[in-house]
Amino acid sequence: MKGLSWIWVFLALGTASSTILAGRRPINDQKADPEASVRAILAAQHNAWNEGNVEAFLLGYWRSESLTFSGSHGITRGFSGVQERYRTSYPDRQAMGKLDFSGLEVRTLGPDAALVLGHWHLAREKGDIGGVFSLVFQRFPEGWRIIHDHTSVVARN
Amino acid sequence: MKGLSWIWVFLALGTASSTILAGRRPINDQKADPEASVRAILAAQHNAWNEGNVEAFLLGYWRSESLTFSGSHGITRGFSGVQERYRTSYPDRQAMGKLDFSGLEVRTLGPDAALVLGHWHLAREKGDIGGVFSLVFQRFPEGWRIIHDHTSVVARN
Repeated sequence: MKGLSWIWVFLALGTASSTILAGRRPINDQKADPEASVRAILAAQHNAWNEGNVEAFLLGYWRSESLTFSGSHGITRGFSGVQERYRTSYPDRQAMGKLDFSGLEVRTLGPDAALVLGHWHLAREKGDIGGVFSLVFQRFPEGWRIIHDHTSVVARN
Repeated sequence: MKGLSWIWVFLALGTASSTILAGRRPINDQKADPEASVRAILAAQHNAWNEGNVEAFLLGYWRSESLTFSGSHGITRGFSGVQERYRTSYPDRQAMGKLDFSGLEVRTLGPDAALVLGHWHLAREKGDIGGVFSLVFQRFPEGWRIIHDHTSVVARN
């Protein structure tokens, strides 16, 4: 029985030390709140766009041949395909205009996936345009990334 | 050691009987292949549409106030809102036309969620129309259901 009582001491110490270590965990690690992580990526994209930096905007996307983007041209595949579409459609700051996201709504789909709905609006010299988007995010070792984007236009947005 | 050898016999019998029971499991239960379940729902929706049965088509959607549909009118909320939009936009078989889905692609997002990409085409007397859709499915006790639909038009589809 003496041997068994040591087991309890070890178990108790183990529980206590993991609780202490859990409190020291950095807040930006892989266990961070999915909604906060996803909103931070969208805020970074929003800022990058309005600084005319398409490459920084693209950091929110999964850098993979399996990335997909559904839009007015159908389905675009692969990170390089999506990058090419953005570069062609928005060659300069005038084409990029001023971007606004609104009504962002984050819904978790499990421990490693989330759906984000929202409205987008581009204020441009040649006329404003806007609509809705649906983004599917997935959690990777490097953080959350958009694995699928469906963006479309809504008239009189 | 005599006692321990009985443990192995029980373990072996346990493994064998679960294997036998697994083979008897009905194929449509909650452990069914997500891709097969999701494709079966889309096939049922396709058939319902082409029989002019909007109500049967709607069975694929989550019957909840949290259902969302992003499209040419923005974001429609709730099952009754989506039902209303379908009823208004497609009042009769002529308006419904003949529906075709193509290029269906099912990606699982975890044990209980899946993303489906595809193309849609409506052959109608007043002119064909088509585009792309992104569906987010979630698994419920009653089966897989669409919890979000983003459907948009692609010119010259």
